Amino acid sequence: MITVDVQVREAPYKIYLGEGILDRLAEEISAQNPSSVLVVTNVTVGVLYAKKVCEISSKICRTEVVYLPDGERYKSWAAFSEILEALAQMKADRHSLVIALGGGVVGDMAGFAAAIYMRGIDFIQVPTTLLALVDSSVGGKTGMNMRAGKNLLGAFHQPKAVIADTAFLTTLPRREVSAGLAEIIKHGLLADAKYFDEIEREIDKLTALDHEVVARVVARSCQIKAAVVSRDAKEKGERAKLNLGHTFGHAIEKLAGYGTWLHGEAVACGLVLAARASQKLGKISSSDVQRIIALVKRAGLPTEIPGISLSKAIEAMKSDKKSSGGVIRFVLLNAIGEAYVDELPESILEEVLLEGGFVK
Amino acid sequence: MITVDVQVREAPYKIYLGEGILDRLAEEISAQNPSSVLVVTNVTVGVLYAKKVCEISSKICRTEVVYLPDGERYKSWAAFSEILEALAQMKADRHSLVIALGGGVVGDMAGFAAAIYMRGIDFIQVPTTLLALVDSSVGGKTGMNMRAGKNLLGAFHQPKAVIADTAFLTTLPRREVSAGLAEIIKHGLLADAKYFDEIEREIDKLTALDHEVVARVVARSCQIKAAVVSRDAKEKGERAKLNLGHTFGHAIEKLAGYGTWLHGEAVACGLVLAARASQKLGKISSSDVQRIIALVKRAGLPTEIPGISLSKAIEAMKSDKKSSGGVIRFVLLNAIGEAYVDELPESILEEVLLEGGFVK
Repeated sequence: MITVDVQVREAPYKIYLGEGILDRLAEEISAQNPSSVLVVTNVTVGVLYAKKVCEISSKICRTEVVYLPDGERYKSWAAFSEILEALAQMKADRHSLVIALGGGVVGDMAGFAAAIYMRGIDFIQVPTTLLALVDSSVGGKTGMNMRAGKNLLGAFHQPKAVIADTAFLTTLPRREVSAGLAEIIKHGLLADAKYFDEIEREIDKLTALDHEVVARVVARSCQIKAAVVSRDAKEKGERAKLNLGHTFGHAIEKLAGYGTWLHGEAVACGLVLAARASQKLGKISSSDVQRIIALVKRAGLPTEIPGISLSKAIEAMKSDKKSSGGVIRFVLLNAIGEAYVDELPESILEEVLLEGGFVK
Repeated sequence: MITVDVQVREAPYKIYLGEGILDRLAEEISAQNPSSVLVVTNVTVGVLYAKKVCEISSKICRTEVVYLPDGERYKSWAAFSEILEALAQMKADRHSLVIALGGGVVGDMAGFAAAIYMRGIDFIQVPTTLLALVDSSVGGKTGMNMRAGKNLLGAFHQPKAVIADTAFLTTLPRREVSAGLAEIIKHGLLADAKYFDEIEREIDKLTALDHEVVARVVARSCQIKAAVVSRDAKEKGERAKLNLGHTFGHAIEKLAGYGTWLHGEAVACGLVLAARASQKLGKISSSDVQRIIALVKRAGLPTEIPGISLSKAIEAMKSDKKSSGGVIRFVLLNAIGEAYVDELPESILEEVLLEGGFVK
């Protein structure tokens, strides 16, 4: 088992990584001494793992479970209110604990419910997707979508612990494994050239879900993210770098229709677009771009999603919640392993989008 | 103008108190340099003051306004989502500012919307009721009700400033003035015997809304609350003392039906019940209790609300969000000016409730 310490000022916590480590959950629940537990999961994951989680938890205290529908399009008030109603109906109090068992959607919504129920109760994450593992385990971001945009509502709320059993990943669809790899590649690109090399070396073992390699690489990704977040918990500055590929990615997701492409797939395309833009600005070489494209492909990810309207994409990026007063701040690369944040001249932006398959 | 400094660790702010000081708002908005402003108010208050607030704000940046229905029963998802939709529709971004213009309901919901929109944007409070002034200006509590209970959802989110123009109070119904006085009496009771003496001396000027006395007394109440809160921002310990009268009060509100009695009226009854319980425990004298009852009456507040079911009241108190595992923690008095938190023997609780007009 690998342990990653996440140092957030108010409440440091640990991420436990490894194959078959779910039993560790018992210790972490006991450590919180909860008055009751609500397990939040979705129907797909719940069928596989909710029974085991509830068995562990109900030995410690009264435990109930709520099953949400599966999918990003259910990251909405309707599903969210089911969690809140479940908490109210079981008379959860300030010492109750929420366990988020699932991928990013479950984690974000269960964490957000924990953040606002009685102005904040504890939660533990048990991520079941590679994306949730590398992306949602660190940073304390929780939230849900509004019709007007993704994650428009949310709160910063840190989990008490993250139990990441890599055995769960074996039941993941291949596409979702790749989607998780997009964030891993992103971490290498934005912060650590040596880590990027390592991902390149290990990419076949990663796609084949070699437990040891997955745990080691995920741990490094979590460390990178934790280091950035601990320096900038509320996203005022440096943390923006973690959005590498995401301004493009969010626009792709929005215009292709949420659910058509996985978040990680849209981000993969966004990474390639950011790389191309950085090349046009003279920051990285064309062979760097080719290297990035090759790795994205080997990870089983798309490098472009053709046919999206260029003008609508720019409009979507301007209304992205990271934008301010219509000015888009892009995360770009000084080099593989070093990101920076800046505006992008409209001419370069258009050029990059056209090369990336967007249409006028 | 009186200024109260509220020292909260992450974000200290000021409360400005006085007659005709609304223009101060311009300076406070400018200090935040917002990209846009949403004024949240209700129909009753909005008719009187929204125009002036919007005039001030729209000189600084794009300003829109949303009117909520008036009343505690609208502290619900339906009204709350109107605020969120208004923010989304005006394309509010992370640098947008919410101004809460109204009483406690508006302040709580507008503050909660600001707390969760894009994981937190700034807000300024412009309280228009005495209760909001002494109660919501300090502490950073925001929230809304669920069917299952009051303020079951919420977040801690500090305002950037509070502009409290006592001129607004002159349009308040008399009952609401009295309701605000309940919290003021509470502050004297729980923390400062000399302040309690002062309230007794000034009670006629307070009910007559003498601006100078009101500003001075409200400032002292805000200081007391700020001192308690700054020592215990997330309500782990000492802050519980601020709930003096509230465990009883919440049960009364719930069982009488929200809206039948004002929050402050229910709290006033709760103060008397807490005093009686403290006397039965031998902590305060019967003349102390009589003194408290006399002040509550002079403030125009009820000392009991007869006919509520004793068993239902106890059940409601057990499910209050300050309770844990069915154990009710009461705030009691060691003396006028000194509160403590403890359980209450069931026999004394029943006795006190029966004397207070509850029925078996």
